[in-house]
Amino acid sequence: MVTEIDFKKGEGLVPVIIQDASTNEVLMLGYMNREAWEKTLVTKRSSFWSRSRKRLWIKGETSGHFQEVKEIYLDCDGDTILLKVNQLGGAACHTGFRSCFHQRYKEGGWEVSGVRIFDPKEVYGK
Amino acid sequence: MVTEIDFKKGEGLVPVIIQDASTNEVLMLGYMNREAWEKTLVTKRSSFWSRSRKRLWIKGETSGHFQEVKEIYLDCDGDTILLKVNQLGGAACHTGFRSCFHQRYKEGGWEVSGVRIFDPKEVYGK
Repeated sequence: MVTEIDFKKGEGLVPVIIQDASTNEVLMLGYMNREAWEKTLVTKRSSFWSRSRKRLWIKGETSGHFQEVKEIYLDCDGDTILLKVNQLGGAACHTGFRSCFHQRYKEGGWEVSGVRIFDPKEVYGK
Repeated sequence: MVTEIDFKKGEGLVPVIIQDASTNEVLMLGYMNREAWEKTLVTKRSSFWSRSRKRLWIKGETSGHFQEVKEIYLDCDGDTILLKVNQLGGAACHTGFRSCFHQRYKEGGWEVSGVRIFDPKEVYGK
């Protein structure tokens, strides 16, 4: 049994799976560095390190669609985190879909499969 | 909408979330390179790239506990895969637990939380 998060293997970052606490639907995957992990513990809202923007971000800081953290799990070798959350606004994806995983593989290609909850133009104004 | 997997962002690897197709429990997270992805499509069994052993591995090749792939999803920016599987043997974790995520955060530490399905000594002989 491991007793702490291994931030070394991923050069300071660990992948974090976000799952809906009530339905168990997987909503998204993000990355945390130690600062994002500690921010999550203190605020009880999912916080991540953005690899593209290279900065800490609290999920929902723009849209208001925060994730209230209900349960936290660590995998067997300590290098992946799983959060069970209550997704405010009903959708985790910036495209307005409930889940970021809304493209399903079928017959050699990807097709949209999922529920769109909001219009991104209305939420993000763009 | 993205139409293909982005292997570039993670230097040839993408994280792959494995979820039980019937219960939606998250079982594990692995990594695929393009070869593991193609192997998975052909065999319909989860195949990964082992970062520690630096080789392709088919989940279950030692234990017999293969994962039959039922559904495949891609996230909004194409850099994470989600597989829904039928887990043969009932457990995904090499420690014998159903899920690799069997440690739960509580009051500043990690405690075991999950169901142990098999004894690793009997399955792996060590």
